[in-house]
Amino acid sequence: MIDTNRVGDEMYRWASDLFPINRSITGAGLRETLTYLKNILPDLTIHEVPSGTRAFDWTVPDEWNIQSAWIADEAGNRVVDFADNNLHVVAYSTPVDEWLTLEELQPHLHSLPDQPDAIPYVTSYYVRRWGFCLSHNEREALKSGRYHVVIDSTLAPGSLSYGELILPGREEKEILLSTYVCHPSMANNELSGPVVVAALAKWISDKSDRQFTYRILFLPETIGSIVYISTNLDAMKRNTIAGVVASCIGDDRGYSLLMSRGGDTLADRAGKLVMKHHAPDYVEYSYLDRGSDERQYCWPGVDLPVVSIMRVGYNGYPEYHTSLDDLTLISPAGLAGGFAAIRKFIELLESNHVYNVTVLCEPQLGRRGFYPTLGGRDVVNSVRSVSNVLAYADGTRDLVDIATHIGISPEEAIDIAKRLEDAGLLEVER
Amino acid sequence: MIDTNRVGDEMYRWASDLFPINRSITGAGLRETLTYLKNILPDLTIHEVPSGTRAFDWTVPDEWNIQSAWIADEAGNRVVDFADNNLHVVAYSTPVDEWLTLEELQPHLHSLPDQPDAIPYVTSYYVRRWGFCLSHNEREALKSGRYHVVIDSTLAPGSLSYGELILPGREEKEILLSTYVCHPSMANNELSGPVVVAALAKWISDKSDRQFTYRILFLPETIGSIVYISTNLDAMKRNTIAGVVASCIGDDRGYSLLMSRGGDTLADRAGKLVMKHHAPDYVEYSYLDRGSDERQYCWPGVDLPVVSIMRVGYNGYPEYHTSLDDLTLISPAGLAGGFAAIRKFIELLESNHVYNVTVLCEPQLGRRGFYPTLGGRDVVNSVRSVSNVLAYADGTRDLVDIATHIGISPEEAIDIAKRLEDAGLLEVER
Amino acid sequence: MIDTNRVGDEMYRWASDLFPINRSITGAGLRETLTYLKNILPDLTIHEVPSGTRAFDWTVPDEWNIQSAWIADEAGNRVVDFADNNLHVVAYSTPVDEWLTLEELQPHLHSLPDQPDAIPYVTSYYVRRWGFCLSHNEREALKSGRYHVVIDSTLAPGSLSYGELILPGREEKEILLSTYVCHPSMANNELSGPVVVAALAKWISDKSDRQFTYRILFLPETIGSIVYISTNLDAMKRNTIAGVVASCIGDDRGYSLLMSRGGDTLADRAGKLVMKHHAPDYVEYSYLDRGSDERQYCWPGVDLPVVSIMRVGYNGYPEYHTSLDDLTLISPAGLAGGFAAIRKFIELLESNHVYNVTVLCEPQLGRRGFYPTLGGRDVVNSVRSVSNVLAYADGTRDLVDIATHIGISPEEAIDIAKRLEDAGLLEVER
Repeated sequence: MIDTNRVGDEMYRWASDLFPINRSITGAGLRETLTYLKNILPDLTIHEVPSGTRAFDWTVPDEWNIQSAWIADEAGNRVVDFADNNLHVVAYSTPVDEWLTLEELQPHLHSLPDQPDAIPYVTSYYVRRWGFCLSHNEREALKSGRYHVVIDSTLAPGSLSYGELILPGREEKEILLSTYVCHPSMANNELSGPVVVAALAKWISDKSDRQFTYRILFLPETIGSIVYISTNLDAMKRNTIAGVVASCIGDDRGYSLLMSRGGDTLADRAGKLVMKHHAPDYVEYSYLDRGSDERQYCWPGVDLPVVSIMRVGYNGYPEYHTSLDDLTLISPAGLAGGFAAIRKFIELLESNHVYNVTVLCEPQLGRRGFYPTLGGRDVVNSVRSVSNVLAYADGTRDLVDIATHIGISPEEAIDIAKRLEDAGLLEVER
Repeated sequence: MIDTNRVGDEMYRWASDLFPINRSITGAGLRETLTYLKNILPDLTIHEVPSGTRAFDWTVPDEWNIQSAWIADEAGNRVVDFADNNLHVVAYSTPVDEWLTLEELQPHLHSLPDQPDAIPYVTSYYVRRWGFCLSHNEREALKSGRYHVVIDSTLAPGSLSYGELILPGREEKEILLSTYVCHPSMANNELSGPVVVAALAKWISDKSDRQFTYRILFLPETIGSIVYISTNLDAMKRNTIAGVVASCIGDDRGYSLLMSRGGDTLADRAGKLVMKHHAPDYVEYSYLDRGSDERQYCWPGVDLPVVSIMRVGYNGYPEYHTSLDDLTLISPAGLAGGFAAIRKFIELLESNHVYNVTVLCEPQLGRRGFYPTLGGRDVVNSVRSVSNVLAYADGTRDLVDIATHIGISPEEAIDIAKRLEDAGLLEVER
Repeated sequence: MIDTNRVGDEMYRWASDLFPINRSITGAGLRETLTYLKNILPDLTIHEVPSGTRAFDWTVPDEWNIQSAWIADEAGNRVVDFADNNLHVVAYSTPVDEWLTLEELQPHLHSLPDQPDAIPYVTSYYVRRWGFCLSHNEREALKSGRYHVVIDSTLAPGSLSYGELILPGREEKEILLSTYVCHPSMANNELSGPVVVAALAKWISDKSDRQFTYRILFLPETIGSIVYISTNLDAMKRNTIAGVVASCIGDDRGYSLLMSRGGDTLADRAGKLVMKHHAPDYVEYSYLDRGSDERQYCWPGVDLPVVSIMRVGYNGYPEYHTSLDDLTLISPAGLAGGFAAIRKFIELLESNHVYNVTVLCEPQLGRRGFYPTLGGRDVVNSVRSVSNVLAYADGTRDLVDIATHIGISPEEAIDIAKRLEDAGLLEVER
């Protein structure tokens, strides 16, 4: 049994450690994050892909690193400072050291009038510019005058880093777990994913009897998954039976499931069954609502069977992509709930088979201990689920379909199928 | 035309005659019931299957017979007596002749606290035990003390009896009617089935122009149908186009239709169309709600196209499987309604064909007498159903599908198709 | 750009010119109407099909012409006169010149008690009789006495006339436009169809770059389309990708779409998408509600992919098939709205392709100008429709399906597809 409390606390601790790091789609913060994860998962391989590498329609950009950045007034007071919050700088800002009037500075400032306390998260990966983000209140307080603007950053050939962990199973067929590690200090829309996936990877490593191989990825979003797919597509298409993108999975609000592009893969069917019993009020999104790396995994021609399991989901919460998405937004229990949802998804996949019942007509469940031997008015319903699993084990439905059709949870379905297989009443067709 | 009142009265009389007999899944009461039915249906064949015969996962049990059974108090008063009601003994009770304290007796007693006036119906076919059933009020009134418990029964090799009637038609393709004859004195959940099926068998026998062969079965539930299927499966799979299990079909409450496992066979489609027009408020159950021999007929690998037509249905009424399910629960009109539902189902199947319209574009219905010759504003709708039957007679839909799609009753569909065939506008494709 | 006001006014003027003509399924009025249309569409071919010609189940009837008709009282006052309104005579009335009592006359009179001011429209094409139609108020006012009844008509071998315009495109594949020209003075259920189709034909003629060939028909309803299909079925079946019947398309009430018999052809899919955006409250009818020549085009074995686009639709308005369906019931704006609906349908078909996205994984829309280069919280949704078109361009869906699935209008879908094709991101699969 998993000690859920312990896992939740551990994940929250990892998130707290990783929170201050200034991650982006390349650079030192990304590399530091992957190194931290490698301490947890010693078999994690950290890959470096050189700037300029082509990947389908994209090119790996120069590596971005930043030492410091601030805006100071004429008196030398730093009115905005990267040292206070790494969201203060537009990601991929070019270096600058200038004196500007407030009027000249304004086009480089970003704030949210409708959330005046929040620092927004802004990026400019592929067009060179610089900028600062600050709360609208701070911006409104700026007095006219001249400001000294400094960004001590570098944009130069380097590499894009990502982490990959392959956990072999009895079969080459594999399950994909993917999450992203490219946002600076944000908790739910960043760190919840890596810490839940890291905890899952530990749990999978400890399973001695894995049927499937696991491909576990910690990538910079978009460019990272595109680069990864460009070099691994054949193997992924050949082997992947189901996958999940973990994102926004640490808060205590609802749950959501974002379906694959087609909406009818094994990942979709298993995801729906798990979520219906794990969180009956979960929200189901179609691929039209996509937001993270499922965009790439389900793209035409890539077409991997991948869903996203989230708690409140992209854009579904007001703190999204602002400084308000901090460590108070996630919790050990919230992370543990997300962990449990994906764990159940994996357990279901590991136990999923197309079954055939081995006898024609109902078997005599009574003499096998599945059925009361005394027939009364209530007996008919008492082992209904056992009988239903048998009645739909007709060589055309897998356990996911059977459980969905007869209305039982994944856990109950797995338990019943195992008992019936042990009793010789079910055979695995495939 | 069927004289419905006469048929209803006749069925009710048969049920009244059969009510007192102590039926079980084997034994003298079952045999006496089949003999009574053979008086109605002289061509009925009564088969005997020896105890110990294997049938798939099952074995025909020893034959059970019982002469008498009672519980007497120390004064010799019979406080429970099988002679009063054959539900008082747990079916398949082993013989006993003992003096027991009330405390020792209690584990052998069965009653229903929530229905204190009802004697429950309890069986123990495959585990040897004995027991008595009584109303909870009677049970509560038992005084402490010693009781003389006597069951004069035998459990010994013998045979399982069932009745089979084959009514040949022009084709080998056949329609299955199945009902059960294994419950002691209960009216709706027992006798309604056999008397409705007996009346249908008489009516079918009198039809001179049957397209289909009819296989009509009176079986002990579960073990009887399993035994029957085990020796007739090939022929049944080859020939059966549709079938119906008749059960709980004599009350005056609603109607219900229980679909086959797949839910889309001819029997399902025809059943839905018939019920929609015969009883628009009927309840539709899936195979997940199965309760009688459709459990076997639709089992994976058996997979016959069989539905159940019921009135209120298993477990749908509080008197189910108790002494309250007596002759007051059924009525001539209730039985006649059930009879009519299945009769319409059979008539629809006998007239069901895939049709082709014989002309391209609309035929001129006016000169054939289907259409007013004077065109005014209301004409368009006046023969709409005739035109609709033609418009969907495209060689892909059978009459059941056409009637369902265009919203007409089976009777209207049969009548229109016949008139159009006579007029040369429809041809049977198959 | 179409000048909608100008087109609406022009169509209304044509309808006003054509209104007084006494059309029927044959005869001088029909021919005069076609001649008027040929003035608008010089390439229109007027065909004449001799009386007695067989067409599937039908025969072209004798040609009907009428000079005058009236009922006069004993004082010589014309109480009903065809000269006042050509609806006063039952279409195809045989000649008569008799004196009758009011009682003898009554069986020959037709009126509508529930619409006492309306003259009904009545026909008797295939059974020879004569009759007069009048308002119920006029009929009630008739005094007993003798009446002189005169119909100066001829029913004699002649021909059935229809108009056909073929506008070749780059491909042989064709789009069908069909409307009817056989009703006397009625505006919505007659003239709206021909004037909208004539305007569309002018607009199509002016398109220099037609992909498809257009087959545009002005026919007497039913017999005309049957005759036409009987001689053109092979070519129509081989080439027609979609078609539309235009009928009741000039009022200012709602819109409706009547689906083909199968309901899932390209015409159905395109029609639904257009109507959903052109008139979100449009009513969708199935083929069960058919009323005009779609009855023939979708008949089994004919099975052309044809829908009807209407405004209020057959029988949907109280003035239908009466003298109240006059020029006040239609309007320039009403006609222009109907014209626009079918124009959008054609524009969508002309731009409809199955597309393939040319890159694996998302393309970098930013550097192609589709995407803001500065990533902030709202960017994800800003070019969502562009991304969605790409994401579903997987070689299995045409533009109609993509736009329907992602919820954008035909115009937006056409625009986006063109921009993406220009940018090299989409390729036409077929």
